[in-house]
Amino acid sequence: MQNFKPRLSVEQVEEGHDLSPKFDANGLIPVVTTDADSGEVLMMGVMNDDALRLSIETGEAHYYSRSRQCLWHKGATSGLVQTIVEMRIDDDQDAVWLRVRIAGGASCHVGYRSCFYRAVPRGGGPLVFTESEKAFDPIEVYGDAPNPTRL
Amino acid sequence: MQNFKPRLSVEQVEEGHDLSPKFDANGLIPVVTTDADSGEVLMMGVMNDDALRLSIETGEAHYYSRSRQCLWHKGATSGLVQTIVEMRIDDDQDAVWLRVRIAGGASCHVGYRSCFYRAVPRGGGPLVFTESEKAFDPIEVYGDAPNPTRL
Repeated sequence: MQNFKPRLSVEQVEEGHDLSPKFDANGLIPVVTTDADSGEVLMMGVMNDDALRLSIETGEAHYYSRSRQCLWHKGATSGLVQTIVEMRIDDDQDAVWLRVRIAGGASCHVGYRSCFYRAVPRGGGPLVFTESEKAFDPIEVYGDAPNPTRL
Repeated sequence: MQNFKPRLSVEQVEEGHDLSPKFDANGLIPVVTTDADSGEVLMMGVMNDDALRLSIETGEAHYYSRSRQCLWHKGATSGLVQTIVEMRIDDDQDAVWLRVRIAGGASCHVGYRSCFYRAVPRGGGPLVFTESEKAFDPIEVYGDAPNPTRL
């Protein structure tokens, strides 16, 4: 398994070749996932230590599910597995960017291609849908699994 | 100023036209910012309530700086202002995606175009730089302002 390096200096973290990720107080690091071809942002999530190691090792996106409080191999339920084309880490190594290809071409539990299917107009006003139809039927794919959205 | 709507139901939040953002226990919402033309992820940050309102109102990206603990009008120091081409909100409205154009074409305090200038190889191993040179000299732009990176 991948060993993460200790964070010793700003220069090492920002300008070096060591992977020294910074997990927050809850042991999590934020992740943004984009479609490797279109550049569209598909989702934002978090990884814990194990999810990051497994993503590097297997080439498939693993996250930590805060609603279910467990390691989450994306696509294990839905089949919408994310194959990692490229993984990047940011300057201070407290954020991860995954460029992925998705089996089935969709990512969002609501059924849309991207989780970001609504635009916020400049100046405010009602949200504008940017996808006109769902890529899959969430009931068919997830059945009666609890909806992860929390109010 | 934009008024955010109360979160009343999963259906309203996921399928409706109300902007009802969910801020975390610290009053923050994560933001991913991409180049509107190339789709490249430039940075990840957070907004508080004011930063989100001001971003919607002015069309320029405002964040909350956790290192400085204050509202942060991106580019106020560096001149690298981010003009918002499109703002999106995700399914459960706990994450924001900004598509921006940047004066000067760079975003990262280290001097690179994107904060994500290093790739993590599949299986592990040393990080690989994806930008070969800096877009600007951070000392010239930021002078002796404290480096925001924390170990």
